[in-house]
Order: sequence, then structure tokens, then C-alpha cells
Amino acid sequence: MNARSHPAGGCITDVAGVRVGHAQRVGRGWCTGTTAVLLPANTTVAVDVRGGGPGTRETDLLGPLATIQHADAICLTGGSAYGLAAADGVMHYLEARGVGFPVGTRPEEVVPLVPAAVIFDLGRGGSFTNRPDASFGLRAARAARPTPCATGAVGAGTGARSKGLQGGIGTASRRLADGTVVAALAVVNSAGAVIDADQGLPWQPGSLHLRRPNAAEREALAAHYDTVTPALNTTIGVIATDAALTRGECGRLAAVAHDGMARAIRPVHSLLDGDVVFAAATGARSHPAAPSPRDDARAALRWRNELLAAAADAFAAACTDAVVLADARPGAIAFRDLCPSAFSRYAASVPKG
Amino acid sequence: MNARSHPAGGCITDVAGVRVGHAQRVGRGWCTGTTAVLLPANTTVAVDVRGGGPGTRETDLLGPLATIQHADAICLTGGSAYGLAAADGVMHYLEARGVGFPVGTRPEEVVPLVPAAVIFDLGRGGSFTNRPDASFGLRAARAARPTPCATGAVGAGTGARSKGLQGGIGTASRRLADGTVVAALAVVNSAGAVIDADQGLPWQPGSLHLRRPNAAEREALAAHYDTVTPALNTTIGVIATDAALTRGECGRLAAVAHDGMARAIRPVHSLLDGDVVFAAATGARSHPAAPSPRDDARAALRWRNELLAAAADAFAAACTDAVVLADARPGAIAFRDLCPSAFSRYAASVPKG
Repeated sequence: MNARSHPAGGCITDVAGVRVGHAQRVGRGWCTGTTAVLLPANTTVAVDVRGGGPGTRETDLLGPLATIQHADAICLTGGSAYGLAAADGVMHYLEARGVGFPVGTRPEEVVPLVPAAVIFDLGRGGSFTNRPDASFGLRAARAARPTPCATGAVGAGTGARSKGLQGGIGTASRRLADGTVVAALAVVNSAGAVIDADQGLPWQPGSLHLRRPNAAEREALAAHYDTVTPALNTTIGVIATDAALTRGECGRLAAVAHDGMARAIRPVHSLLDGDVVFAAATGARSHPAAPSPRDDARAALRWRNELLAAAADAFAAACTDAVVLADARPGAIAFRDLCPSAFSRYAASVPKG
Repeated sequence: MNARSHPAGGCITDVAGVRVGHAQRVGRGWCTGTTAVLLPANTTVAVDVRGGGPGTRETDLLGPLATIQHADAICLTGGSAYGLAAADGVMHYLEARGVGFPVGTRPEEVVPLVPAAVIFDLGRGGSFTNRPDASFGLRAARAARPTPCATGAVGAGTGARSKGLQGGIGTASRRLADGTVVAALAVVNSAGAVIDADQGLPWQPGSLHLRRPNAAEREALAAHYDTVTPALNTTIGVIATDAALTRGECGRLAAVAHDGMARAIRPVHSLLDGDVVFAAATGARSHPAAPSPRDDARAALRWRNELLAAAADAFAAACTDAVVLADARPGAIAFRDLCPSAFSRYAASVPKG
């Protein structure tokens, strides 16, 4: 199997009400997929687009001057710009359930707000013309569950690569002292490396305590990196929290998630990357009130900075796990294949896929 | 017929290489459509989103920090956010012809860059679920011609309304003294009025020299306006020129097109409008060189300001013509139906549709 469930570092579904579903197709010329992140009602959403070559949909809805502050779901998908069609399927799923912005007199007359971003994986299954369409978005939304989601080469990460290694989906969550949860889901498809060739280890910690691979493995990794020709890439994801944030604060959350991306993937944010992070605040809980107004303002500032720092950490960990936990799809090679000794302490508990 | 060809005020196809095609479906619960604006190779494109409730696709590609400066086509469509699916069809048309950003080793491995924006027209044909899909975009792109396009209630303007009157598509072009062409195509679907109720005439001149309607007609217009309940709206369009502009300069062009919109439609840019203008500069001609560097800088500034002023005028005229020239689709009432005497001097040459 290519998916692992419930990584030790937590999951974006640790944010109450967030549901994640994957759909993918592999074989017979296919190697791509779509991930739907369904959000609870009235979730505030923002976006931060950092790559020079983004492929997006409905991001103007999330701009600082836009009227509606929320979105109903986020669609992450393979297929480059062609894959934006997958968002139609997520919209259809939500419309059928009456979820969306009401625009008519009847409850079913809604327009679901589904921002989307894509990664470049065209041709990785063998055929350039096999890409996600609306049916992928529909299947991903139908598969969405509030329980920890599969990671690795699944959903939007199915055809992902990270400097020539199998890329994929990673997720991680952090809990602040007051119980606020902030959690990330990343689809890593990067020109830059998540695994440092010198050490044979990730730049940033993920959910596993890896051992340094042996010299032969490290050489194999470096040799593999040398064979990689630059291609089109993109890392996309979602940072979510149960805190109550304004759109502006969500924008800051997305910004620091990009910091996490920058720590975990080197280099990143290049000219043709379409690196995009969506931030979602469900508002299920707000930070606790402090005794005096002055203390309150101070405490609120401290709390917000803690939230931002945890968001960057969670996003970095999600990027790391996306590559560390991925098993290879046909035609790809996984980090764990090149450097199995890194995983030696997990040999019993984390079986090879 | 609902379409009129070659309005006296020119057409966006006066910009060499720009092709426009419409597709629409009317009757049996349908009243919506899509317009494809195909651009010549290496056309620089920018966007200015002013409404509080936009529905867009691939606009991050057009951001000031994006790497690629051009787009291959622009898709304008009905169907609210559901209609974004129409852009898939425009992409497929271009892909089949090898038009797009090259991403592989073979010429057919391209990703067409097709930004899109939508208007809200859901349910205007009778069924809420009848909206443009990829087939509309494909048909519109196939229908695209470099000759003057149909206007009125066609393409993306089929289901449009303008303060309860039939809205639609208008187009206009202006030529600077040096021969530079700047031209607009607008899809007017506005809560605000293009026709002033007091005078019974447009706020801004279009291509026709209208007469003031008689008192009974003006009263009928005012009475009709009074029956209009606020709905979701949006005016979208393209301002194009054969000048060679940077993306930043294109952004200015889109900004002044919004000025034209503001003159022609009152009020506009409201909280739930998705008002969006794309600007496209084909670069087929640049402004003529002046004799000395100092004169050159002055002349270039003057020329740019003339271009911007002409762009605002053209966009305002396009917005006006969109409503003035529209014949009503079933269920709508057109300005010419309410105020026929305004057109009396054209009775012979502009037959009622």
C-alpha cells in the first residue's frame, strides 16, 4: 500500500470539523490525484501565493478586500492547470448537500466556495493527457473523513516528486498550551530537496526519529540527486486551526506556513514553482481571556505569536513527512528505498508498503 | 436575432490578432453562455479585480510577481463559480493546437494559460443547475474569429441583466493619433444602471446617437427600475491594445477600464459584485520614437496617458453598448423595448431583433 494512516505527528483532521479525502488513479498511463479538504461552516480562509508560476482558482475570493470571509472547501490537485477541473467535482458534492453561499430563495440554491491550487505532475503516469477532472474532486470529497487521513503518494500527492524522489502528502499538528490546535497538510512536489544529501536526513524534523543512513546509502542518494533534471514543480497545502482569526490573521498564518516550507525544502519558491498555502480558521475556540485589559492585549499578542510559530513548525513537519513517509509509485524511487537504514528503528512498526 | 455585428464604435477585434467567439444556450431551462477571447502569441496580460465577490481562475498567474507575463486566452462566462468549468474547454481547444506554455519535450505538451472570470446568471433560464461547462468554452473558442463579434445578449452576456434590463456584451475601440488601437469588450450584468432613469439615456456615449425617449417611455423605464430587487451581479471584460506594454502598464490599463465602468454603470464595484477587467497588450506595435531622449521620455509619457484615457473611454462605451444594443432573451425586457423612440433615427438601419 502507498498510504499510511495517522502519523505520530498528528493530522490536519486534529482541527475539529476538518475532513480530508483523497482520490487517485495509478497505472495504464495514470499517476495523479486530488485531495479535498472540507471545512466546517463559517471557516475563515486566506491564501498566500509565493511561487512565480501558480495555478489557482477562486483565490480572488480570498483577497483582503473581498466581502465573504469564508470558504467551504479547498481543492488540492495534480494535473497542472488542467487539474483545476477537479474543483468542479468538489463544488458538485457540496451543492448536492446544500453547502455554499446562498444565492436564491431555495436552500439548494447555493454556490460553494472552493478555492483550488495545482501541482505539476503531467506525464508522470506515462500519458500527458491523463489528469484529474471533476470526477476526481467528487471522489475525493466523497471520501473525506474527520479521521486522520492517508499520507504519502496519495490524492494530490500521487504523482508528486521531490528533487527526483517520490513526493506526496504530509500532515502534522501542534497543540498550544491553551489547547488551540494548528495543523498542516502539504503536497510536496519540489525542485528543491527535503532530504539533505550530505547527511541523508531531512532538514527539518518530521514525525519519525530517523537514523543517519550509512555511507553507501548517502552516496546513492547524492548520485540520484545528480541525475535529476530540473522540471516544473510546486508545493501547495493548507494550514488550519480551531482558533477564531480574521482574514488578515489567516493571511499571516499562511505566510508563516511558507516559512515552514522554506525550512523544509531547499531551495523553494522558485520562478516556475506555484507554491501556494491556504489558511483556514474554524473559530471553534478563541484564546482565553486574561484578567485585565492590559494583560489581555499582551497575552493575546503572545498567543498569536505562539500560534504562528507552531504553524510554521507544523507546516515544515508536514513537508518533511510528505517525502519521508512516501512509498514509491511506479516509475519513482522513494527515500525509504534509497536509504532504508534511516528507518531501521521502525522496521517492525512501519512496514514497507 | 439577438446578436448585432460590427457596431459603429468598433470592436475588440480591431486589435490585430485578437479573436472572439461566443457560445450560448437558450430555452428549455437555459439562458447562459460563454465568450472566449483568444490572444496572439506573447500577449502580455494583467488583471484588476475590484468587486467584493469575484469568481476567477488563473488570476494569480497575472500577479505582479508572477514569472510568465502572458496568457493565451481569456474566458468570460455565465454560471457564477460553476461556470469556471468553461475555461477547461478553452484550454482543450488550445492544447489541441499546441498553444500554451511548453512543459515537455514534445510540441503538444503545453499548458494553455487561460484566466477566467464569471458573471452571476444562475436560474435566469429557469433552471438553477443549467450552467456553462467545458463544452461551452470549447464551442466559444471554436467560434472565435478575428472579425467583429456579435454583441448584446450573446456568449457570456446571454443571461446578463443591468438593473433589471437585458444586459449583455458590448465592444468598442479607439485609435490614437499614431495608429495605436485600444479596444474593450464588456459583459454587463450590473445592479447599477447604464441608462439614467431621469433622462432615459445612457450616462456615457455608446456607438449610437440616441434620442431622448418620450415621457411615457421614461416613466415606464423608471417604473421598471422600481420593480427590480437587488440580486447578485458582476461586470467583467477585457481591454486590449496592440501597444507593447509591460505587465505593470497592463495593470494600469485594467485599472482605467474600471474607471470607464464606473462612469457607465452607477453604482458599480459593490460588495457582492465580482467586477473584473483583464488587460491584454499584444505588442504588435510600440509608440513611435521621438528625436531626442528628453523629447522621447516626454512623448512616451504623453502617449501612455492618451492610451489610458482612450482605454477608459472605450470600456465605458462598451458597457453602454452592452445594454443599448441588447435584444431581450425570453423572460427579460430590453432598453429598446421600453424606450423605442430613443432609437427612432435608426429605425431603418437597425432592425429590431
